Amino acid sequence: MTKQLEDLLSFLRFASVSTDSDHTSDVRDCAEWLIKKLEHMGLDTELHETPQHPIVVARNKHVAGKKTCLIYGHYDVQPVDPVELWDSPPFEPEIRDGRIWGRGSTDNKGQMLAHVLGVEQTLEEEGELPVNLIFLFEGEEEIGSPNLVPFIEKHKAELQCDVIAVSDTGMVSKGVPTLGYGLRGIACCEVTVKGPAGDLHSGVYGGAVANPATAVARLVASLHDSEGNVAIEGFYDEVRPLEDWERNMWAEVPGMSEQDMLAVTGSPALFGEPGYSSAERLWARPTAEVNGIGSGYQGEGSKTVLPAEAMAKFSFRLVPDQDPKDIMKKVQAHLEKHCPEGVTVEVEVGHDGKPFYADPHSKNGKAGQEALRQAFGKEPVLIREGGSIPIIQDMKEIFGVEALMLGLALPDCQIHAPNENYYVENFEAGIRLNRALLKELAK
Amino acid sequence: MTKQLEDLLSFLRFASVSTDSDHTSDVRDCAEWLIKKLEHMGLDTELHETPQHPIVVARNKHVAGKKTCLIYGHYDVQPVDPVELWDSPPFEPEIRDGRIWGRGSTDNKGQMLAHVLGVEQTLEEEGELPVNLIFLFEGEEEIGSPNLVPFIEKHKAELQCDVIAVSDTGMVSKGVPTLGYGLRGIACCEVTVKGPAGDLHSGVYGGAVANPATAVARLVASLHDSEGNVAIEGFYDEVRPLEDWERNMWAEVPGMSEQDMLAVTGSPALFGEPGYSSAERLWARPTAEVNGIGSGYQGEGSKTVLPAEAMAKFSFRLVPDQDPKDIMKKVQAHLEKHCPEGVTVEVEVGHDGKPFYADPHSKNGKAGQEALRQAFGKEPVLIREGGSIPIIQDMKEIFGVEALMLGLALPDCQIHAPNENYYVENFEAGIRLNRALLKELAK
Repeated sequence: MTKQLEDLLSFLRFASVSTDSDHTSDVRDCAEWLIKKLEHMGLDTELHETPQHPIVVARNKHVAGKKTCLIYGHYDVQPVDPVELWDSPPFEPEIRDGRIWGRGSTDNKGQMLAHVLGVEQTLEEEGELPVNLIFLFEGEEEIGSPNLVPFIEKHKAELQCDVIAVSDTGMVSKGVPTLGYGLRGIACCEVTVKGPAGDLHSGVYGGAVANPATAVARLVASLHDSEGNVAIEGFYDEVRPLEDWERNMWAEVPGMSEQDMLAVTGSPALFGEPGYSSAERLWARPTAEVNGIGSGYQGEGSKTVLPAEAMAKFSFRLVPDQDPKDIMKKVQAHLEKHCPEGVTVEVEVGHDGKPFYADPHSKNGKAGQEALRQAFGKEPVLIREGGSIPIIQDMKEIFGVEALMLGLALPDCQIHAPNENYYVENFEAGIRLNRALLKELAK
Repeated sequence: MTKQLEDLLSFLRFASVSTDSDHTSDVRDCAEWLIKKLEHMGLDTELHETPQHPIVVARNKHVAGKKTCLIYGHYDVQPVDPVELWDSPPFEPEIRDGRIWGRGSTDNKGQMLAHVLGVEQTLEEEGELPVNLIFLFEGEEEIGSPNLVPFIEKHKAELQCDVIAVSDTGMVSKGVPTLGYGLRGIACCEVTVKGPAGDLHSGVYGGAVANPATAVARLVASLHDSEGNVAIEGFYDEVRPLEDWERNMWAEVPGMSEQDMLAVTGSPALFGEPGYSSAERLWARPTAEVNGIGSGYQGEGSKTVLPAEAMAKFSFRLVPDQDPKDIMKKVQAHLEKHCPEGVTVEVEVGHDGKPFYADPHSKNGKAGQEALRQAFGKEPVLIREGGSIPIIQDMKEIFGVEALMLGLALPDCQIHAPNENYYVENFEAGIRLNRALLKELAK
């Protein structure tokens, strides 16, 4: 086994589950292991306390005139339940069939350590790095990074950089290098519909008063027209139109065909905004989704109740250049306008995050593409992603620089699930990627 | 205390909760007390076993040439939870402020015993009844009368009657005698909407596949137009139009004004089918209600899931001359036609019951009105009710005769709730009512 794989297995043995207070000391031990590793490589390190889990920062000796590159990652991991579904213990990593099996192997320890070990290799072989490097590793990504933005704002001067790189996203397929240049944002809210003072008998009172379950359903239905377009006034106003090169490239991206999408979702049919492919719907078009709806009696059999209340949870995935606060105002106006007669509607606004976009054809974007080309020996594809990692856009805006998403996660890596795994060849490619990336960014 | 009130308190002390197997012997003890009471009055009695709780039948000596009148009632009661909200123990009945407080005082022991004691008084004072009488008392009304129709069908010849009388419905207001001549029927179903094979991440997949929570909401919304009319094709086809005398009478009925309905329901506003008053909406117009809807995450905070499944429970209240089986076919056709793209919809048909209607101006209807007039010393109002008691229509059809609903329950009697109560004066009026009713029916 290579020294590098041994390092990864050591890193994976820490049960750094950030959401579980039973693992607080494991998270800290993991951070300290990381500090030791980075110091041993000759970097200057800092372990910053936060109200919860520490942030690790490391730097080489910065030199005037060199570009400064910040590489972000996280050393905390998801919980492991249901643990009985794992083929090998989540924190006793094993290498089988060319893959490293263990919690965090892909998300994010394996990806971030590839960058660390790329730097180590460059330092060993060349004595110095082509860039001024800042490693910024947090231990709270899986709990929503509550302390990262305040930390960055407080230490903006020391952390200021020319470009950000992150490997915490996906590759479209094994062996296909993937540059992510967009993420969807998000805006959430919860709606409570109130009708009668208490549940009523649906025979005695049904027909004379509005039913909140019907009302909430009418509100949900009002969010889309019958074709699948979001029907909120002004919802699409700020959406950046797809460019031809995106549509052309995405039409060829592996894993996104109709058959692929049917297989991966298990849906009886695909459905979405008319005029767009699945990739376009997921990566470049906004959505209005119901994450939960509930009212009345949901148990076995029937209970002829006219419920007093109903609720629905909504999340809106947003794309450049939509603004979550602006969208939430439009959502609230829509819900007010469509409030059915005979009930009241309350909207509780939830969390939000901006969409992310970085031009993949900029100088830095091209450097990222070239690094991927060198690491994998193949032409990279350029994609966006449907999910939301608000911290990337936040960092981009705080520093006023571009961010590159150089994903190394494969579709079958099982992140957040039992049997998380990471291909050894992706780990090795990640090390090559880091070395090429720093060289290309330095140009 | 009168002997009659003492009898009622004895009857109320049995915890004859039919739904709770812990009370099986209390239900039987109650039936046996009833048998003893009826025998002591000189009636011939039968205690019929069923798979659950016994049916009690009693008769006077039937004489050729007299009309046969069947009086139905039930001696089982609802559970008492939440028992801590009762001001006095539910099975230790008390008389306070002119009311009898205890479970079953109104529903139905107090109402049915008034008939028994009316018969007792007539027999004591006159030696015989003006009619051939059949008392039919069941112990399973609160669990849906599962054994009553089979019993009646088996014993149809012995139970054949010329008219049915039931006191198990409401008076519109204290002191206002009320003849019920209609009940709504019911048809129930549950809908399951299925989309992806499992819950999906709403960022990664949202927009490319249909969301079952959205789909079930669209189905629910499709049941009505924006004005509140049921939008199922043919739904209103068989609805018997309201007659002028009904609209005129109901406009004057106490307790049904807009203010009354707002107060009793606590709804922010009234809402229903355009062109009808609340009384008309409740008593003579059919409805489509959602009794429950559920999908996805309904807990605290947000979870950005695209749910795999969604459900909704529907009940349709039906009026003469709608047929529950016919309506359910129309509902199924509607749900099939409106099934949103990208999901599958399964409909599980539930229980149903026919609406009830009996002409209040027929000979028997007029006898019922006259008996109410004599018992309360006031002109009776003629109403229908919004709820469903399918057994009344079932008996009406099996015997091919009319049924009179001579309700003695007041709006504040708290049936099915803590502090159920029955005005002593209503109990006494019920005894007078029985005596007058048998005389009037005999004419």
